[in-house]
Amino acid sequence: MKVLSQNTAFGGMQGVFSHDSQACKTEMTFAVYIPPQAIKAPCPVVWYLSGLTCTHANVMEKGEYRRMAAELGLIIVCPDTSPRGNEVPDELTNWQMGKGAGFYLNATEAPWDENYQMYTYITEELPAFVSQHFRVDMDRQGIFGHSMGGHGAITIALKNPERFRSCSAFAPIVEPSTADWSIGAFEKYLGEDKATWRQYDACALVKDGARFPEFLIDQGKADNFLETGLRPWLFEEAIKGTDIGLTLRLHERYDHSYYFISSFMDDHLKWHAERLA
Amino acid sequence: MKVLSQNTAFGGMQGVFSHDSQACKTEMTFAVYIPPQAIKAPCPVVWYLSGLTCTHANVMEKGEYRRMAAELGLIIVCPDTSPRGNEVPDELTNWQMGKGAGFYLNATEAPWDENYQMYTYITEELPAFVSQHFRVDMDRQGIFGHSMGGHGAITIALKNPERFRSCSAFAPIVEPSTADWSIGAFEKYLGEDKATWRQYDACALVKDGARFPEFLIDQGKADNFLETGLRPWLFEEAIKGTDIGLTLRLHERYDHSYYFISSFMDDHLKWHAERLA
Repeated sequence: MKVLSQNTAFGGMQGVFSHDSQACKTEMTFAVYIPPQAIKAPCPVVWYLSGLTCTHANVMEKGEYRRMAAELGLIIVCPDTSPRGNEVPDELTNWQMGKGAGFYLNATEAPWDENYQMYTYITEELPAFVSQHFRVDMDRQGIFGHSMGGHGAITIALKNPERFRSCSAFAPIVEPSTADWSIGAFEKYLGEDKATWRQYDACALVKDGARFPEFLIDQGKADNFLETGLRPWLFEEAIKGTDIGLTLRLHERYDHSYYFISSFMDDHLKWHAERLA
Repeated sequence: MKVLSQNTAFGGMQGVFSHDSQACKTEMTFAVYIPPQAIKAPCPVVWYLSGLTCTHANVMEKGEYRRMAAELGLIIVCPDTSPRGNEVPDELTNWQMGKGAGFYLNATEAPWDENYQMYTYITEELPAFVSQHFRVDMDRQGIFGHSMGGHGAITIALKNPERFRSCSAFAPIVEPSTADWSIGAFEKYLGEDKATWRQYDACALVKDGARFPEFLIDQGKADNFLETGLRPWLFEEAIKGTDIGLTLRLHERYDHSYYFISSFMDDHLKWHAERLA
């Protein structure tokens, strides 16, 4: 593990690290916030998955999670959104594909399948690595994210209900199979057969029987992507008749930015802490 | 006034604006956070002055001031640290001079004197402009800042005690006339005669009789610039025997970054709110 930076913050430590990923066959960078409580005992961990174009750094710099994480004693891990490096395929002029747009899935189509194995990276490799290097209570894990990362958090929770005790999302893409800004990427990563897309689509997963106790979703009503990319009402519809709980909050005037995320960050961390206690 | 961006945050509004500055003879950008309380009545304003290399954006993105400003009902204005634009003189390879390094003074030496009139901009032009465009209670003003901006805040408070009711600083340069990273800039902006430097030097101002009721200063002990650039003990020494109050807090393990600033932002905003009530 390379230590890229370590800064004291709110009595704990915000670090940035990198390691050689087997899943993604490249060096991957991630951020970890260690609250002061972790000196005494292992702390629960909450995974934050970022949105399109982001790296580990966006939420680390703009998410304003450290104060409350320090108060609640939560470790926050912020992975990158895709493999990186010169050897990794990309579409330079397309922000919805390639670097910064891994969609938390395992690509099956060339040339993407070589490195774009973000599902395995996020659900297996990185947790194993983090638990080896930090004092994490792996029996108490939560997951959340923003936009593409909200999609990642909800689908990963639905597919791993035994691992995660809590899940929430800011403005998640709930049905990427039919959303303007993800169809193109799903075709390239997963091929034309839409049946294989369903394992990475929150609405389809629920319809196919996947279950998770409850979700918190915050969504801004002034979000430019609400109608074409996000559409939380599709998830509300999908869970009808199931025992999945949903707290869906729509907020007047809030947009898709980190100004929105940071405004409700405390609520999300409390949501997780209550379920990880 | 041009509106560059407006985002809802913590029930209020974070905006970025620009205007043509008479003092700096160029377009200047600044950020303003308007708390929700400002809808009902004018709110007190706290000016935040940033450090070397910064623009209005650094503290806006990383300072984590909005949550507490919304709670306390404070307007936060974050100006740029220098004039900008192609016509403005600069030293491209020197981060301690020119753009991003205005030192909140009025330059007297060519070619800097044409645009580098940051003291007049910050103390006269911008306040007049802000009070014209926002619901600000100009009888309740506080000022704070970081590093070079801490220098700016303390010197401006000392020179304008009738205007500001509160002042605080994160890791301020308290004696720029003798600090490694400011001597070069002071020579170029103000010329060789060090007598003229004293009006922009907190320690010298106090020795020359300037007074302000009290200051809060936070300083990280792991700050790389502590010994050569900041040296808060010089200010502690300078105020001895005066009626100036000083709360100087030294923090183990904290460095010079926004991880340090954000960790103590709440304390500073409360300090100001108590004195602006």
